[in-house]
Amino acid sequence: MNRNKCIANIKAGYLFPEVAKRRREYAQAHPDAKIISLGIGNTTEPILPHIDRGLTEGAAKLATFEGYSGYQDEGIAELRERISKVFYKGQFGIDEIFISDGAKCDIGRLQLMFGAQTPAAVQDPSYPVYVDGSVLIGAGGGWEDSGYKGITYLPCTAENDYFPDLSALKPNCLIYFCSPNNPTGAVAGREQLAVLVRAAQKNGSFIIFDAAYSEYIRDSGLPKSIFEIDEAKTCAIEVNSFSKPAGFTGVRLGWTVVSKELKYSGGESVNADWSRIASTVFNGASNISQAGGMAALDSEGLAEIRKLSDFYLGNARLIRNVLVKAGIVCTGGDNSPYIWARFPGRDSWEVFTEILEKCQVITTPGSGFGPSGQSFIRFSAFGHRADVEEACERLKKL
Amino acid sequence: MNRNKCIANIKAGYLFPEVAKRRREYAQAHPDAKIISLGIGNTTEPILPHIDRGLTEGAAKLATFEGYSGYQDEGIAELRERISKVFYKGQFGIDEIFISDGAKCDIGRLQLMFGAQTPAAVQDPSYPVYVDGSVLIGAGGGWEDSGYKGITYLPCTAENDYFPDLSALKPNCLIYFCSPNNPTGAVAGREQLAVLVRAAQKNGSFIIFDAAYSEYIRDSGLPKSIFEIDEAKTCAIEVNSFSKPAGFTGVRLGWTVVSKELKYSGGESVNADWSRIASTVFNGASNISQAGGMAALDSEGLAEIRKLSDFYLGNARLIRNVLVKAGIVCTGGDNSPYIWARFPGRDSWEVFTEILEKCQVITTPGSGFGPSGQSFIRFSAFGHRADVEEACERLKKL
Repeated sequence: MNRNKCIANIKAGYLFPEVAKRRREYAQAHPDAKIISLGIGNTTEPILPHIDRGLTEGAAKLATFEGYSGYQDEGIAELRERISKVFYKGQFGIDEIFISDGAKCDIGRLQLMFGAQTPAAVQDPSYPVYVDGSVLIGAGGGWEDSGYKGITYLPCTAENDYFPDLSALKPNCLIYFCSPNNPTGAVAGREQLAVLVRAAQKNGSFIIFDAAYSEYIRDSGLPKSIFEIDEAKTCAIEVNSFSKPAGFTGVRLGWTVVSKELKYSGGESVNADWSRIASTVFNGASNISQAGGMAALDSEGLAEIRKLSDFYLGNARLIRNVLVKAGIVCTGGDNSPYIWARFPGRDSWEVFTEILEKCQVITTPGSGFGPSGQSFIRFSAFGHRADVEEACERLKKL
Repeated sequence: MNRNKCIANIKAGYLFPEVAKRRREYAQAHPDAKIISLGIGNTTEPILPHIDRGLTEGAAKLATFEGYSGYQDEGIAELRERISKVFYKGQFGIDEIFISDGAKCDIGRLQLMFGAQTPAAVQDPSYPVYVDGSVLIGAGGGWEDSGYKGITYLPCTAENDYFPDLSALKPNCLIYFCSPNNPTGAVAGREQLAVLVRAAQKNGSFIIFDAAYSEYIRDSGLPKSIFEIDEAKTCAIEVNSFSKPAGFTGVRLGWTVVSKELKYSGGESVNADWSRIASTVFNGASNISQAGGMAALDSEGLAEIRKLSDFYLGNARLIRNVLVKAGIVCTGGDNSPYIWARFPGRDSWEVFTEILEKCQVITTPGSGFGPSGQSFIRFSAFGHRADVEEACERLKKL
C-alpha cells in the first residue's frame, strides 16, 4: 500500500497539535510552571443556561417515543429556517441552509466537492485548514520555499489594510476569505467585500466566506455576511458555526449556505452537488446539538450569545491594552477574539518560545498561518478571566 | 467555475434519497395510504434510560465551570480506553482508537487519506458509500455498463456463501468488507476472515472492515471484529458505530481503529496520517455524544445495547418468517437487522414498486447496492413493532 502523495505533501504537523506538543514538552521540563494558554481558539466558558437547557432537553427527548429521531442528513428543517431568519433576513429557503458539525468539517467537504482541479487562493495569513485541506485533496502541491505549489497566497498586511490585492487571482479558483479574520482580527468593510464579489464574478471564481466570528462584530457598519453584498449568491458559499458565539466547540454545530442561484459554468447546480456530498460522506450533526442550536437562536439564546461574546471581547481588550502599552503594534481584538501582534524582524516561533519561557503563556506563532504571518504572534481571547488577567500581568515582562 | 469531474461521475442520486423521493411521490399520489418503511436503516426506538442519562448529564455538565469542555479532535481518552477494553480486550492504546461522528463520515475521511491513486474493491452488493465515496475522491471513474470504472466488484452470492473470490483483487487496493453485511445480512466466519487477511497481506492491500452491525451477532462462533484474526493489525482498519447498537443514528458517534503496526510500503505510519486527517478536516464528535458513549459501554449500558438489538432482531425474525412462508428465498435477519430477499428474474426497482403499491411498504431495491444486488430486495428490521407486524400482514399479499 503506497502512501497518498497528497498527504505526503503536507508539511510537518498541523499548527495547533504542534503548539500543543511544545506546550507538553515545556510542561514536562518545568513541572511547577503554571502555564496559561492564549493559544488555540478553544472556548473556555460554560454554555449559558438557556442554551444548555436546549441541549439537555434535546438529549432527554431522545428517550421518548414522540421525541426520538434518527438521521437528519442536511439538518432539522426548523433550525435551517431559523438560521435563515436570524442571520439572512429569511432570504434563503431551508434547502439552501445545510446544518453541519462545524465550519472546519464543512470546509473539508467543500474541498472534496470542488476537487483537485480547482485551484485555491487564500488570505495570507489564514486559518490553516484552507491550505492544508486543499493540499490534501490535491488542489495544492508540494512545499516550495514559503508556501505550497499551486496555492495563491494573497498577502494581507497593515500596508493594504488587511485586504488583499486581487489582481494575482487565477481564474476559476476558490477564494477562501475569513472576516472577522482568523488570525489577524481584521474585519472587511462593505466596500472591500463588494470588490471581492466583483473580482470573483469577473474571473469565474467562487468565494468560500468563513463567517465563524461574525457574532463578534460590534461596529454596526461592518458586514456580518457576504450575502449583504449584491449578487454574492451567484458566486459565494458561506460557512458559519455555533462554536465561537455559543461556546459549542465541543458540541459541534455549524452551517453552510449554498444558494440555488450558484451555478457552475456548465449551468449545473452547486446546491444539488452539495446535497449529494451531505448524503454521501456525512450523516448530519447531532440532533442534540441541533436542539441546542434552536435554543441559541431564540431571543433568550441570542442574548446569551451576546453576553458570551461580550465576555471574550472583554478579555481581548485586556490583552490588547497590555500589548499596546508595551509598545507592541497590534490589530484585532475589537470586533474579533484575536489580537495580531507584530514583533518586527523576529521569527514567530522564536517569539513564541520567548513568551512561553518568560511568561509561561502559550500563544500561536503567526508564521503557522502563512508566509505573511512571519514576525507575528496571535493572542487568543478565549480563556477564563482570572487566567487572562494573570497572563496580562506576566506579559508586562515583555 | 467548472464542476469537479469526480462528482460528475456519480450516477443519479444516492440510493436512500432516491428511495425517499419515490416514497414522497407515492404519498402525494395516495394521500390516504398509511406507508410503512422497512427501507433505510434508520433506528426508530427511543434511546434506553441509562444511556440517555449519559447524554443528558453530558449536556448538563457543559453548563458548569468544572464540566465544560471544548475541542476533543480524536476523542475523550476515557472513551477511547473503554472502547479498547470492551471491544478489543484492551489490545489497542488510546492513540489507536479514534472517536468519530459515525462510520460513514470516517469512511469518507479514510477515502481522503488514501486518495485517488488507491483502487477500491467492494463486496457486491455493498453499502453505497464505499463506492460513491471512492468515485468522489477519484479512486473510481465514470459509470460503465453495471459499475464504475476502476472499482473491483467482488460478487457475493448464495453460490459462494456470500464470501467473494479474492483472486480478482488488484494489488495495493482498499478492500471494503462489511460483516455482518449490509445489505445481505451475511456474516463472515473466522476462516473466511483469515482468508481475507492473508489475501490482503499477500497483495499489499488494506482492509477497511466495517463492523457497524457487530452487536447484532448472536452466534458466538462468529467473529465480531477483524482483529480477532492474527496479524490483522498490519493490514486492516476497523470502522464501527454506536448508531445501530445504541440507537445513536441521530446522536452521531462512532470510532475507527488504526493500529500503530499498520504501515505503508515505505514504512510510514498510517496511524500518524490518520491523526493528521482528524486534526485537519475534522474537529471531533460531540462531547455530549461521547458522554452517552461512555454510559453505553458500562455494564448497564451494554445490557441496554443487548436489549435494543434483541428488539430489532425480533422484528427481523417476523419479517423473515413471513417471507419464508411466502416461498421467498432470503438470508440474513438472524445475526443482522437486514433480510436479503430474492425475486428471481425480476428487476429490483420493479419489485420495490410492486411492494409499495400492493402493500404500502417501503423497502430498498437490491440493485442500488451493486450489480449483484439485481433481483433482490433488502428489508430493514428497524421499525416500531406494531408497524413491523402490520407490514408483515400486508406482505402476505405478495
